[in-house]
Amino acid sequence: MEGVDYLADERRKAEFDVNEMKIVWAGSRHNFGLADRISKLVANDPGFSKEGRTMLPRKELFKNTLRKAAYAWKRIIELRLSEEEAAKLRHFVDEPAFTDLHWGMFIPAIKGQGTDEQQKKWLPLAYKMQIIGCYAQTELGHGSNVQGLETTATFDPQTDEFVIHSPTLTSSKWWPGGLGKVSTHAVVYARLITNGKDYGINGFIVQLRSLEDHKPLPGVTVGDIGMKFGNGAYNTMDNGVLRFDHVRIPRDQMLMRVSQVTREGKYVQSDVPRQLLYGTMVYVRQTIVADASSALSRAVCIATRYSAVRRQFGSQNGGQEIQVIDYKTQQSRLFPLLASAYAFRFVGEWLKWLYTDVTQRLQANDFSTLPEAHACTAGLKSLTTTATADGIEECRKLCGGHGYLCSSGLPELFAVYVPACTYEGDNTVLLLQVARFLMKTVSQLGSGKKPVGTISYMGRIEHLMQCRSDVKQAKDWLKPSVVVEAFEARAARMSVACAQNLSKFDNPEEGFAELAADLAEAAVAHCQLIVVSKFIEKLQQDIPGEGVKQQLEVLCGIYYLFLLHKHQGDFLGTGYITSKQASLANDQLRALYSQLRPNAISLVDAFNYTDHFLDSILGRYDGNVYPKLYEAAWKDPLNQSDIADGFHEYIRPLLKQQLRTARL
Amino acid sequence: MEGVDYLADERRKAEFDVNEMKIVWAGSRHNFGLADRISKLVANDPGFSKEGRTMLPRKELFKNTLRKAAYAWKRIIELRLSEEEAAKLRHFVDEPAFTDLHWGMFIPAIKGQGTDEQQKKWLPLAYKMQIIGCYAQTELGHGSNVQGLETTATFDPQTDEFVIHSPTLTSSKWWPGGLGKVSTHAVVYARLITNGKDYGINGFIVQLRSLEDHKPLPGVTVGDIGMKFGNGAYNTMDNGVLRFDHVRIPRDQMLMRVSQVTREGKYVQSDVPRQLLYGTMVYVRQTIVADASSALSRAVCIATRYSAVRRQFGSQNGGQEIQVIDYKTQQSRLFPLLASAYAFRFVGEWLKWLYTDVTQRLQANDFSTLPEAHACTAGLKSLTTTATADGIEECRKLCGGHGYLCSSGLPELFAVYVPACTYEGDNTVLLLQVARFLMKTVSQLGSGKKPVGTISYMGRIEHLMQCRSDVKQAKDWLKPSVVVEAFEARAARMSVACAQNLSKFDNPEEGFAELAADLAEAAVAHCQLIVVSKFIEKLQQDIPGEGVKQQLEVLCGIYYLFLLHKHQGDFLGTGYITSKQASLANDQLRALYSQLRPNAISLVDAFNYTDHFLDSILGRYDGNVYPKLYEAAWKDPLNQSDIADGFHEYIRPLLKQQLRTARL
Repeated sequence: MEGVDYLADERRKAEFDVNEMKIVWAGSRHNFGLADRISKLVANDPGFSKEGRTMLPRKELFKNTLRKAAYAWKRIIELRLSEEEAAKLRHFVDEPAFTDLHWGMFIPAIKGQGTDEQQKKWLPLAYKMQIIGCYAQTELGHGSNVQGLETTATFDPQTDEFVIHSPTLTSSKWWPGGLGKVSTHAVVYARLITNGKDYGINGFIVQLRSLEDHKPLPGVTVGDIGMKFGNGAYNTMDNGVLRFDHVRIPRDQMLMRVSQVTREGKYVQSDVPRQLLYGTMVYVRQTIVADASSALSRAVCIATRYSAVRRQFGSQNGGQEIQVIDYKTQQSRLFPLLASAYAFRFVGEWLKWLYTDVTQRLQANDFSTLPEAHACTAGLKSLTTTATADGIEECRKLCGGHGYLCSSGLPELFAVYVPACTYEGDNTVLLLQVARFLMKTVSQLGSGKKPVGTISYMGRIEHLMQCRSDVKQAKDWLKPSVVVEAFEARAARMSVACAQNLSKFDNPEEGFAELAADLAEAAVAHCQLIVVSKFIEKLQQDIPGEGVKQQLEVLCGIYYLFLLHKHQGDFLGTGYITSKQASLANDQLRALYSQLRPNAISLVDAFNYTDHFLDSILGRYDGNVYPKLYEAAWKDPLNQSDIADGFHEYIRPLLKQQLRTARL
Repeated sequence: MEGVDYLADERRKAEFDVNEMKIVWAGSRHNFGLADRISKLVANDPGFSKEGRTMLPRKELFKNTLRKAAYAWKRIIELRLSEEEAAKLRHFVDEPAFTDLHWGMFIPAIKGQGTDEQQKKWLPLAYKMQIIGCYAQTELGHGSNVQGLETTATFDPQTDEFVIHSPTLTSSKWWPGGLGKVSTHAVVYARLITNGKDYGINGFIVQLRSLEDHKPLPGVTVGDIGMKFGNGAYNTMDNGVLRFDHVRIPRDQMLMRVSQVTREGKYVQSDVPRQLLYGTMVYVRQTIVADASSALSRAVCIATRYSAVRRQFGSQNGGQEIQVIDYKTQQSRLFPLLASAYAFRFVGEWLKWLYTDVTQRLQANDFSTLPEAHACTAGLKSLTTTATADGIEECRKLCGGHGYLCSSGLPELFAVYVPACTYEGDNTVLLLQVARFLMKTVSQLGSGKKPVGTISYMGRIEHLMQCRSDVKQAKDWLKPSVVVEAFEARAARMSVACAQNLSKFDNPEEGFAELAADLAEAAVAHCQLIVVSKFIEKLQQDIPGEGVKQQLEVLCGIYYLFLLHKHQGDFLGTGYITSKQASLANDQLRALYSQLRPNAISLVDAFNYTDHFLDSILGRYDGNVYPKLYEAAWKDPLNQSDIADGFHEYIRPLLKQQLRTARL
């Protein structure tokens, strides 16, 4: 930080202990210390500079990312960073790269689906990056429907090999990150065929490129799939296309933890339960929820700081104009997003716990909570990524015109983030999975099977179908029990209504298809209830630090009252609240915005983001926006000369009326 | 079009005359013929190819746009195109360029604000492009609040000149398109100061660059403001920064139609009414509404065609999977956007009529309808641009993973479109202007002043406050009178509720600020009513062509029932409908989706867009998506070599464990 802090006045207004809030945000003192140390290490190292990233043409951009990835690995080795520290370092380098897939998908796939022997063979190579791997699942014609993949792996008993082949154009592997130009190996998902029979999708370790000269191996066609949304964004990543022309791999490169093919070509299932694979899915989606809070909080941090810097209208007698953060329209769009960032942080924390719990149960062969955990993570992945993608764009709009500049950081943040709505389960498809779980739960209510975990409120269905809100004044909406019952009643009633409508169909699958849009809405109601409940539960814990808990209570109130207002139709339509009560909720929401206002800047300071990580002139810690915007403009390539490249060929002939003879 | 039409089956399903629908969409046979001819002319001319646009680095991208602009002008001259044809040609070239501002802002500003003499001097130069101009209004620190601009134009009676000056950093002109590297002239908005008194903002014609060598004139600092959202997108435009250091211009370069400064330095108002300036605003915003329907329809066309090509899940016995357009979740997101595109088209058509009407009245010194027309265009600008920006991104998500590729066309469409939410009036600021008009109308209801035009329903306020929907079965929701009353009652009640809440404040301005978010919602309700009414009125006209009107009725129903469902809370909260009636509306909406389904492809064909204009592999007319996606991938610069540039420096040292000695 250089010089004056233009936001110092804002920081002085805070009514809570910002340092303690930093611990709460980070999850623990340990996490805070780690993130603080590593983020500063990255920020202070010119090797990780983000300068000019949005101006580089594709090849230079990609090459620079290769450099950063190698440099990061070098620093990790030199500094002898732990695995935890190394992961944090990659996080703060903040540039999508092949390493994300190597560490985040290739290695976990081998760990989760490989036998002990396979792990012993492949993991040491991968850990040292002597091989670089990716995760080749989706195909040109197949994304959500994994069972529809077309790539084949046919066992040849004569040579004890699998023949990996791409039988159609649509079977081309398409999208895997790190596949196009870097990976030497891939875990390839293909239909296992042995003795003429198709045993469905299994994973295979396939080498793609020579470890010497990096050339694609015979039979392998591999490349990059081309430019993606945004300037830098995911164009630093070599999302790839891959085709196999009868490529042979040894039998022991099939990942054989769950099922095997014997030397004779017999397909056998091991005694390892298939459900273990769902455990991995819970893990991956849990990290996506954590990432959502990270991405949303960055956007909110930028928009909040800039809203305090930017002034517009309301100047009296030549004085300063009003800070835009003081406008209620700005607050009513910005503060719910700030509250959402915190809400997603806490539900993410809880999901981490859930994953541990599920893992322990699976190890003890207890599969009872798996369906609920699966529905819950699927739904929360969908809910948080949708809200975050929309929220980042909203933050960009809240920054007015300047939010459209790459130097605001927001266009990149959006372009990098939006694929989260599609990958690891399309958000709409996931909501329908949640809806199936809800319908199943409702249908079993009479059976004596007691709903557990986040769905346990369904056990009180009779009460929830009949009760009515007893809110009489605005501040009643601050009572946790009042709020939880409202969200439970709404979710339960929407589910029951769907179930009743479904029962009118002779064919339940037809009914499910016809009512899909309503079912998705019921799923959203269920998922919002989870987030609200977990936020409220968090507040029932002991939280140290002066004023910290009070601020979190304000945020929590804003989160649920904002949802209540946005989905008023659900709450009114199911008859749980009256329009008078809805209006009281809105009054309380407005009052909470005013309470939050003086703390807004400090609440985003609590994220403890470096200027390097934010990479936004509008979001600078010191608020010194205008001089830095002005400075940055001159770095554009177009400003390398006063006269534009092209003036003589294309502008002068216009001005001089000499177009007829111009060569264009 | 080459070869097979993969969407032929879809096209055969249409239940209406597509050619007649094309006329309806275009607005007239003349418009259709014009657009059809010019769009094909552009599409077939290799000089206007869009190939590789998203892969070019900034300087090359910009240079190529300069070439296209010059080439377009050359073709316009060679083909002796009329003004109307030339404008269409620029539209179909479909690349933001300095010419947009020259023709769309610079020339209209001189026409609207210049005296006859000034027009005679400057317009011929501008029409021949012997000078190139832009519109320099916004500043680094000032956007929405035009009255807050800081640039000064101080009259010097000694030399009969104005001294144009940028007194602060925040007074730097910032954003004007075409300013950075091309324009030789600008209409500069500055505070007029004469005899030591500040007379507020006026326009001045200022030369910025030499007409010989294009160098910035003395005292002028001008450049590009840097990269913006998206790959190609608005980076083809030189949005600029401009500072003046006491630049002198002759007095007669102040635009003097409405106010003048005399030789002696006296400020005088002419007898030309200031309201004329609002007429221009109505014009500009009317074109923005038309552009919204154009942009949204492009996105919808892409997503609809791809949804018919893409198949996922539901394969039985090895047969084909289900087309994703057959999923109700897809329909419930896509079809309302298709309906919105048509709705915005028709309301845009009506706005064009409104502009003509207002202009004629202004010429006859009748200002009575101006406030209503102004509120109406402000509100519709806000409503349609917000819905379009969100809608394009929704269409992108509806295309799943492949929508994230630039070759889908959707990322560019989004990045080019979103600034429309901010320029020409920030959408939230505009809604508050509408709300002010609504509150004023409500407050005058007792006064005997009869509300006119789109606000005339307020004249029936007593009925609207008391009535209740008499819908008894789903199909009652297809009756126009039922629907219009519902939207009128909702809008009226929300306005009245705001007015009542406002009356509780001692200071009305404080109240307005505090309730701003609610007021904006009331404004949205009013604007949606306008769009719904105009769609319904359109259907009361005679519309030829087999089945055409029926299809439009389905679209209209989808449009309003979708809004009713989305804003259920308003309709229920104001007590006009019951939750049973809301549920019937939803049933009817689902039924309309099924009716629309077989006509979906033909309804987007009716837009008559060329593949060149769409520039989307997913939206290809022939549906030949996968082979073309595959083909396009190989054109990425990263695929110029099998081995990535950077392999030897940054990948090999990783694989070979030689990082310690590597130079990174």
